[in-house]
Amino acid sequence: MSKVEPYNSLWGHWMLRALQLADLAEGCTSPNPLVGAVVLDVNGKLVGEGLHSRAGMPHAEVLALAQAGEKAKEGTLVVTLEPCCHQGLTPPCTEAILKSGISRVVIALQDPDPRVAGGGVCRLRDAGLEVITGLLEEEASYQNRAFIFRVQNGRPWGILKWAMSLDGRVGLPNGESKWISGQKARGWVHRLRSKCDAIIVGSGTLRADDPLLTSRGISNPEPLRVVLTGSLDLPLNAQLWDTTRAKTVIAYGPNALPERFKQLPEGLEGIALRSTDPVELLNALAVKKCNRVLWECGPTLATAAIERGCVQELAIVMAPKLLGGDSAMTPLTDLGFASMNQVLLLNNASMQRLGEDWLLKVLLPKLKS
Amino acid sequence: MSKVEPYNSLWGHWMLRALQLADLAEGCTSPNPLVGAVVLDVNGKLVGEGLHSRAGMPHAEVLALAQAGEKAKEGTLVVTLEPCCHQGLTPPCTEAILKSGISRVVIALQDPDPRVAGGGVCRLRDAGLEVITGLLEEEASYQNRAFIFRVQNGRPWGILKWAMSLDGRVGLPNGESKWISGQKARGWVHRLRSKCDAIIVGSGTLRADDPLLTSRGISNPEPLRVVLTGSLDLPLNAQLWDTTRAKTVIAYGPNALPERFKQLPEGLEGIALRSTDPVELLNALAVKKCNRVLWECGPTLATAAIERGCVQELAIVMAPKLLGGDSAMTPLTDLGFASMNQVLLLNNASMQRLGEDWLLKVLLPKLKS
Repeated sequence: MSKVEPYNSLWGHWMLRALQLADLAEGCTSPNPLVGAVVLDVNGKLVGEGLHSRAGMPHAEVLALAQAGEKAKEGTLVVTLEPCCHQGLTPPCTEAILKSGISRVVIALQDPDPRVAGGGVCRLRDAGLEVITGLLEEEASYQNRAFIFRVQNGRPWGILKWAMSLDGRVGLPNGESKWISGQKARGWVHRLRSKCDAIIVGSGTLRADDPLLTSRGISNPEPLRVVLTGSLDLPLNAQLWDTTRAKTVIAYGPNALPERFKQLPEGLEGIALRSTDPVELLNALAVKKCNRVLWECGPTLATAAIERGCVQELAIVMAPKLLGGDSAMTPLTDLGFASMNQVLLLNNASMQRLGEDWLLKVLLPKLKS
Repeated sequence: MSKVEPYNSLWGHWMLRALQLADLAEGCTSPNPLVGAVVLDVNGKLVGEGLHSRAGMPHAEVLALAQAGEKAKEGTLVVTLEPCCHQGLTPPCTEAILKSGISRVVIALQDPDPRVAGGGVCRLRDAGLEVITGLLEEEASYQNRAFIFRVQNGRPWGILKWAMSLDGRVGLPNGESKWISGQKARGWVHRLRSKCDAIIVGSGTLRADDPLLTSRGISNPEPLRVVLTGSLDLPLNAQLWDTTRAKTVIAYGPNALPERFKQLPEGLEGIALRSTDPVELLNALAVKKCNRVLWECGPTLATAAIERGCVQELAIVMAPKLLGGDSAMTPLTDLGFASMNQVLLLNNASMQRLGEDWLLKVLLPKLKS
């Protein structure tokens, strides 16, 4: 395999363009990955671009090659993910590439899908094409971290979001939390939702906040709205029960009385879980083709999600306010640490302004199980 | 009075230099203000610089004029604070200016000290000098905010500092808090201490952390270390009881048994307060010539200090860690807010990296009393 230095490469510029194209469909492709592709003719001139926009729609390579047409002959295909070599919802991309007369394929990332996993590269090499792999691999892995995580772990990538004051409060003692963050930050959260496949709350947040949990129309369809409940003891009226704007799933534990679900309005989907373990919920959401979920829950469920390895990323909005208040209104409950050596260390955090607020984004380390 | 636009001014460059000079003595001049001065000869060439380094030492103007000597004649004095016209620990600066032959004085800020308060400007104008005031006044006010606050309110400016995790915890459930922040942030706290006249903790922090509370030698003498206690029920051994490196004051409320103070090691200073109200403590520290104090206390005292208007500035160190834990280990206790409209809004906050941590600095609004 020929490995290349990203920015020294002749193709680095075009791979960045392919990554940008892929990014345009963020939140829309699940359970599929994000993929972008460009085609250059024999003289290195751009003759085709494509991106994968939605599961079931054509793959990026196929679109870019179709745009290039005859000009692809002896040209180069630059693509963010290894082309597939299997029949899925669409035919294998490797065959379209061979048919196009392309003579070189530059790939960022090997497809972790076991049906591909290097098979695409082999098929192209066996057919005599020059194949360069690993160009901007790290960037491509980061872009598809949710897809890769889901393929490797069988459950979606989890983002936990909370908004807090400078004294670490997510609400007032009376439960009021509207609004801690400003308008710009709330708009950012709507965009974040649009990039996720499901938004999860517990019954406590449902009761306290009666949230809408949509992207406010940024994504269509809206992400799935999910309530995790042990008891099915839910209010009869809630904004989530109106499923005209977005679907709502109620996932309940084994101790819930199923007849309670029937008392709720029609149009809701119920999922009976073996337990209310967040892992159980995420396994069920993987079946529903979710690559990435957003936890917008209260401290108890948030803490359980972290402890069960169901949170890979944090998005913390910090507002320049002091709230004060009692114990319940903090982002997390007890994580069971008895020494500073045990606490969760987060690396590569980034901080940015969001209007009057700040946004801190950080990846969580893999927990020892 | 001639008022000038700061950066349009011929003298803006030199006022910035005078402000820089003043800044070099930050934390050393109390109860006096920070003052810097430069002298330009009749052709506008720099011929003298000076700064006020410590109460009892010569004033900035006098030092700058002494350095300029004969070259001050028909020159310009640029000074950050209105020259004094009264006999204090040193003679009035106005007389030294008149004697020097200076023909123009450029001043940033009127001295709020009622013994001056415009009298210095009048004295110079009456003697026929050209006097320009208000140049970089806002910058000069900010630099001397602690001095101005103390003169106007009779008690020192308060900075409240805490270090917390991303989930808003200042310690683990077992009380362990060493160390939440990294080495670089702890070094920054030492520098912050060196710029303050006193460091205040409550008996809870004393018992839990047994802190040293020094600047680690950055300032000499070290700031005063102050323990506020209602009961005088203090440990017999504590790092603060070793007064060879820094002085320690124990301020106790009316319900404390004074004989308990006598059981503590020699060298400590006791102050009997009428109450443990933070305002009472700060009044006593104003008498001890403090312009600026640093609250490094736990949640209960920190909250009381905020509620009593004894905190003007927050310095929050945020570490990229998750601690979890129970209620006690948050930066503040209840502030009594029942609605999001009541919470404390903080403006003009600034965020910066400090090694692996972040530092957030912000001014508190004046509380309605």
